[in-house]
Amino acid sequence: MNQYTVDLNCDMGESYGAWRMGNDSELLNYVTSANIACGYHAGDPSTMKKTVRLALEKGVAMGAHPGLPDLSGFGRREMAVSAEEVYDMVLYQAGALAAFAKAEGTRLHHLKPHGALYNMAATNVELAQAIAEAVYKLDPELILYGLAGSELVKAGEKLGLQTASEVFADRTYQQDGSLTPRRHPNALIVDQEEAVRQVVRMVKEGKVLSQQGDEVPVKADTVCVHGDGPHARAFAQLIRERLLAEGINLTAR
Amino acid sequence: MNQYTVDLNCDMGESYGAWRMGNDSELLNYVTSANIACGYHAGDPSTMKKTVRLALEKGVAMGAHPGLPDLSGFGRREMAVSAEEVYDMVLYQAGALAAFAKAEGTRLHHLKPHGALYNMAATNVELAQAIAEAVYKLDPELILYGLAGSELVKAGEKLGLQTASEVFADRTYQQDGSLTPRRHPNALIVDQEEAVRQVVRMVKEGKVLSQQGDEVPVKADTVCVHGDGPHARAFAQLIRERLLAEGINLTAR
Amino acid sequence: MNQYTVDLNCDMGESYGAWRMGNDSELLNYVTSANIACGYHAGDPSTMKKTVRLALEKGVAMGAHPGLPDLSGFGRREMAVSAEEVYDMVLYQAGALAAFAKAEGTRLHHLKPHGALYNMAATNVELAQAIAEAVYKLDPELILYGLAGSELVKAGEKLGLQTASEVFADRTYQQDGSLTPRRHPNALIVDQEEAVRQVVRMVKEGKVLSQQGDEVPVKADTVCVHGDGPHARAFAQLIRERLLAEGINLTAR
Amino acid sequence: MNQYTVDLNCDMGESYGAWRMGNDSELLNYVTSANIACGYHAGDPSTMKKTVRLALEKGVAMGAHPGLPDLSGFGRREMAVSAEEVYDMVLYQAGALAAFAKAEGTRLHHLKPHGALYNMAATNVELAQAIAEAVYKLDPELILYGLAGSELVKAGEKLGLQTASEVFADRTYQQDGSLTPRRHPNALIVDQEEAVRQVVRMVKEGKVLSQQGDEVPVKADTVCVHGDGPHARAFAQLIRERLLAEGINLTAR
Repeated sequence: MNQYTVDLNCDMGESYGAWRMGNDSELLNYVTSANIACGYHAGDPSTMKKTVRLALEKGVAMGAHPGLPDLSGFGRREMAVSAEEVYDMVLYQAGALAAFAKAEGTRLHHLKPHGALYNMAATNVELAQAIAEAVYKLDPELILYGLAGSELVKAGEKLGLQTASEVFADRTYQQDGSLTPRRHPNALIVDQEEAVRQVVRMVKEGKVLSQQGDEVPVKADTVCVHGDGPHARAFAQLIRERLLAEGINLTAR
Repeated sequence: MNQYTVDLNCDMGESYGAWRMGNDSELLNYVTSANIACGYHAGDPSTMKKTVRLALEKGVAMGAHPGLPDLSGFGRREMAVSAEEVYDMVLYQAGALAAFAKAEGTRLHHLKPHGALYNMAATNVELAQAIAEAVYKLDPELILYGLAGSELVKAGEKLGLQTASEVFADRTYQQDGSLTPRRHPNALIVDQEEAVRQVVRMVKEGKVLSQQGDEVPVKADTVCVHGDGPHARAFAQLIRERLLAEGINLTAR
Repeated sequence: MNQYTVDLNCDMGESYGAWRMGNDSELLNYVTSANIACGYHAGDPSTMKKTVRLALEKGVAMGAHPGLPDLSGFGRREMAVSAEEVYDMVLYQAGALAAFAKAEGTRLHHLKPHGALYNMAATNVELAQAIAEAVYKLDPELILYGLAGSELVKAGEKLGLQTASEVFADRTYQQDGSLTPRRHPNALIVDQEEAVRQVVRMVKEGKVLSQQGDEVPVKADTVCVHGDGPHARAFAQLIRERLLAEGINLTAR
Repeated sequence: MNQYTVDLNCDMGESYGAWRMGNDSELLNYVTSANIACGYHAGDPSTMKKTVRLALEKGVAMGAHPGLPDLSGFGRREMAVSAEEVYDMVLYQAGALAAFAKAEGTRLHHLKPHGALYNMAATNVELAQAIAEAVYKLDPELILYGLAGSELVKAGEKLGLQTASEVFADRTYQQDGSLTPRRHPNALIVDQEEAVRQVVRMVKEGKVLSQQGDEVPVKADTVCVHGDGPHARAFAQLIRERLLAEGINLTAR
């Protein structure tokens, strides 16, 4: 039995109407949990149903992936929403997806907010609490996924929710454990082998080398695997194989 | 104990963002079940939450009121949607509302489709089956509300759902038990007393006088009470009082 | 100088937000007019601007391509919209696109309704008149594109608009000059050479061989070239080359 | 002939589909310019057409009132939109409204951004420039309305646009000429007579008494008259009568 365990999660179901995005059926062969869009930033009811069925078929844990009400911006633009609005929109979207899970005889495993909502909830205590509360009210057994060290993870723990601290393979870290902002030249790790090594270290040692040159502690319960981009499938396969080869067990929490 | 029983239902939660519609808190004093809009033709997450809380406070049974994805047309324009699309959109909307009910410690009681979706499901067997199936998959104990004698009621019964046959106080009926189309000059009953008498007779005798002059059988489980219009509150109060005075018990099924 | 002339038109600008559709910059090398989506069934303001700039750069005539307010259905589902609603939505969308043309120092050349709106306007006199009137009010020099023989073309002519009768390379025709409905087994012409021959004949002889075996007259001012699908670019190139080889001049009207 | 002149502007056409907002036909009796919603935060094509016709009938100058793509938030929530996105959305919305004006044989007079877009453009130079550029590209004779002293007014002037500096009757001012933020206890002037006096002084003397007790200069080309709220009509009438009684000419610039 393995000593080390980590989850590989990927955003899914981000097609909308006639528009396709991502290659869900391929990616589902490599990841252990799927964050399914719920209609606000992407995803429509038919896509949600198909994605739930696909994840079920592949045995991948499924979670709600609610976003801001910004279809034309794909939920990537921060909006000055109130904590109450966030509670309401998360409950709405997660409830809608839960219905598709129930209709297929299964249930949701987790919730991870999308894009700008994820980012805002990493640092804004009130929004973080609103999300955690919506999750708790819908189903206290859902696992709340959030950036490692974020307010979102803290808010979930405070409410007694199970949480999963998320790390990134392809992003560098700062001395305080936060991600290097994307505008910085060294924000991204483009070398895939280096990205894999960073993940292995985070999982096995609970440490990451910061841009400032020090080792900083980081909790790695789940790794974000990107579903779009030309190399998405190849990297998903690579990281899966390397983690397994390192003796790390891959499983949704 | 009363021999006769009927439900008074009203559409609710049809505000959207900054726009108000209806006088839900007033109407909830008179009706016994509330059909709550779910975001497609009207209603936003915040309005849904408020309406669920209000109905709970007033002890009124709450149901999902899903509509077509047509906010600018208030779900009143028929659309050439497929049966699969209808299944998906009903499950989505009902699931979202169910989450608000669950968050408040209660559950949904029924589902009644809105506007053009209601009308299409009255005569289109495939769409009727799609709605019934979505209800069944979400929660087989939900009661399906549909026009008395409609394909929707039949589809619900076929699946083993409880159904409620809906009648209208202010609409005249045809020889075959269908509503007189709105374009006909005699489609509406404008005299409130006459409207009440029609309902009393439908409840007590199971009959309605058709435009052709014959008595035709009609099943009256629930009466549609309109929530908008200048006389909405007054008529709701009137019909409630008259039905009670006639010894008819008012209760959600 | 050529005796024969025809226009090749293609739907464009049908991406939306983060979602891509079509290969506009490729297709613009082969067609002579571009129908640009205006935000209702597809297209967002940024896509509209880019597409206007691209068409201008390639010297392709640009037209408005308004659709029904049905983003999740890509404007392909018929809706029971009133003539007044159609007038309003066409004016809105065409006006929006005209602004992007004006901002780039150019102007619109034509208007072609999209999907279900195009189909409804082919047979519904009132909707056809509503579209023609919106075009006339916005700019009486715009050319109205419609199905050859349709009510839309007739409505345009009645108002004194220039019209362009559209024919299809890949669809078969009925005895009355209408398209064979898509549900029929022989609705589509899959052989590309046969499709090209049909167009050549329509342009040079003004005739098409109907499914009933007779030659029927058809007016071919513009040919619809599909922009999506795996063979879109190849067929656009093929039909362009063949028509030129046949001595047919290709130009927007 | 009057020495002093000011414009009274009011937001209009903010109904949407089945939802009504404001009392446009009443308010149009008192104001001299109407800011008409363009479909993003409020307003649908049918409402736009009706409002254009109403303003034309009442002889009130009409302007575009574009907002953020946030119907459920009424365009009041700031969004992290880029300058390019703002240029595109302003051009789209203003072009759509311009088409309704053109269809009625008239033209737009001005443009005033709505809600959060107005606020962001008051202080964000890039967004202000994007709006000014969209206005300039659509029609360089349009007058750009913006908060007195704002970046928006400066961006308009820099491009050579006519601008109108807007002041508020019911808001207090700070030492630097900015509005007291709404969260402050003294942000609002609730006494209507005091509000009128503040406007008279701003128009006649070009000064306002700041919250710090000093007189600060302010340019008052146009006064914002609110169209919603229970006292909207009464205050519009009051301020109109008082300004006229003070010998101030009321006219769109």
